[in-house]
Amino acid sequence: MSLTLDICRTLADAALATGREKGMKPLGVVIVDARGAVRLTLVEDGNAPLRADIAHGKAFGCVMVGVGGRALERMAKDRPHFVTALGGLTKDRIAPVPGGVLIRDAAGAVLGAVGISGDSSDNDEVCALAGIAAVGLKADTGA
Amino acid sequence: MSLTLDICRTLADAALATGREKGMKPLGVVIVDARGAVRLTLVEDGNAPLRADIAHGKAFGCVMVGVGGRALERMAKDRPHFVTALGGLTKDRIAPVPGGVLIRDAAGAVLGAVGISGDSSDNDEVCALAGIAAVGLKADTGA
Amino acid sequence: MSLTLDICRTLADAALATGREKGMKPLGVVIVDARGAVRLTLVEDGNAPLRADIAHGKAFGCVMVGVGGRALERMAKDRPHFVTALGGLTKDRIAPVPGGVLIRDAAGAVLGAVGISGDSSDNDEVCALAGIAAVGLKADTGA
Amino acid sequence: MSLTLDICRTLADAALATGREKGMKPLGVVIVDARGAVRLTLVEDGNAPLRADIAHGKAFGCVMVGVGGRALERMAKDRPHFVTALGGLTKDRIAPVPGGVLIRDAAGAVLGAVGISGDSSDNDEVCALAGIAAVGLKADTGA
Repeated sequence: MSLTLDICRTLADAALATGREKGMKPLGVVIVDARGAVRLTLVEDGNAPLRADIAHGKAFGCVMVGVGGRALERMAKDRPHFVTALGGLTKDRIAPVPGGVLIRDAAGAVLGAVGISGDSSDNDEVCALAGIAAVGLKADTGA
Repeated sequence: MSLTLDICRTLADAALATGREKGMKPLGVVIVDARGAVRLTLVEDGNAPLRADIAHGKAFGCVMVGVGGRALERMAKDRPHFVTALGGLTKDRIAPVPGGVLIRDAAGAVLGAVGISGDSSDNDEVCALAGIAAVGLKADTGA
Repeated sequence: MSLTLDICRTLADAALATGREKGMKPLGVVIVDARGAVRLTLVEDGNAPLRADIAHGKAFGCVMVGVGGRALERMAKDRPHFVTALGGLTKDRIAPVPGGVLIRDAAGAVLGAVGISGDSSDNDEVCALAGIAAVGLKADTGA
Repeated sequence: MSLTLDICRTLADAALATGREKGMKPLGVVIVDARGAVRLTLVEDGNAPLRADIAHGKAFGCVMVGVGGRALERMAKDRPHFVTALGGLTKDRIAPVPGGVLIRDAAGAVLGAVGISGDSSDNDEVCALAGIAAVGLKADTGA
């Protein structure tokens, strides 16, 4: 199974709808596939210019390292020199914080990751989980 | 007037629909606003990993330099050292070829740009123009 | 409303006049617009070579992340791995300290930011606030 | 003698006044001193986001290599591998085209350089020369 554009659209729409229902700040969502290639970006009105880059950094970091955003944040706190190195290896394209969530199939294989940014990292993650649930796939936050 | 996410969605959907109608190869579309910030990325199934980056390079280059992709390509042919320098100034994020089209309002102000990649550059541009027409804005290919 | 060069000149002159009145060290001031594009830089005589870059890092960081310099500094203290990531995402062009102040219009929309460097960060900020007051716009220090 | 901020202001104002008198497109002007440090940036309304960076690349390249922009362009055409290397050595901050002009004192010592961008490179250079003439210093275009 692979992450089709149709799946990405449904996932992202559900994630953004959750943010609107809960009255969150304007969000940006990025979905990368198992290769780390961007398949979808949607940035709501009223965001700062860096929004898409932060959301990308969350999703891209998860796929490239193979863990969820909470695991990346633990690594950043416990072994900052290692996450600094991961940043260097990826040309500084990783954001090691919650709001990046791996997308796995029923067997656990990584299909990609979604990254959301705009509200608190915890709220960003709530939206990511709602999106992944909407397409019937498994979320891995790294918690 | 500014480029809302709703406008971006309508523009991109019309561009991708054009590609499907004409039997083009799978496409990637990126829309950046007047700040050069990504607002939308959609990459159809079956693309190479670099597709979103190429489409981004087309759109981003148009906004940052303030001209359409055909003007950038002419510059690259006539003054390659200058376009190499533009690449350096933007950390190599410019793709100076057709398929990048400025989006202008009725008064001519730049609202952003769309970049499409996947088929020939000429076909990519056809889809960009269809998208911009669908939202009633003015296209500037740099021709 | 947008940040014209005339507004930038008046803002910067008032900021530098404040530094002179208060006997501060030589200052550098940078103003970026809502796109993150530099509109004005003025560096007084007697500064170290990096002065303009520091002032730019303050202003640019505010606009790209959408918060004032004091908010960036809090983030840097509370979540250093996140601000390190923001640095990476912007190619290390952010200086997350006071002296960077968002410029908002009456409705709260971000028009740009001013960054000042040269004296203490608190004094730098005093000059930024004087400059923004001189053009009748709203300052957001992130406090 | 050194390049004071007062000199930079007078130079830049004369350069921009020339552009307005001749009906040129909106311009951006950057002045760097003999160390390569930015002392002044002014970008007129209606410019693309990259304008200040291009003007900086012209001025910075002149000072760092010690020749005028026309000499840099000749080098870029005659020995592209060398100018590519100069770009690498400066982290791609050089724009090797006319519109970058060295500012020399009466004895020929380099005080800095001015870079102008926005109209044709030839017109940009006309404004740079007018600015340097207004402060009674010697211009070196590299011609």
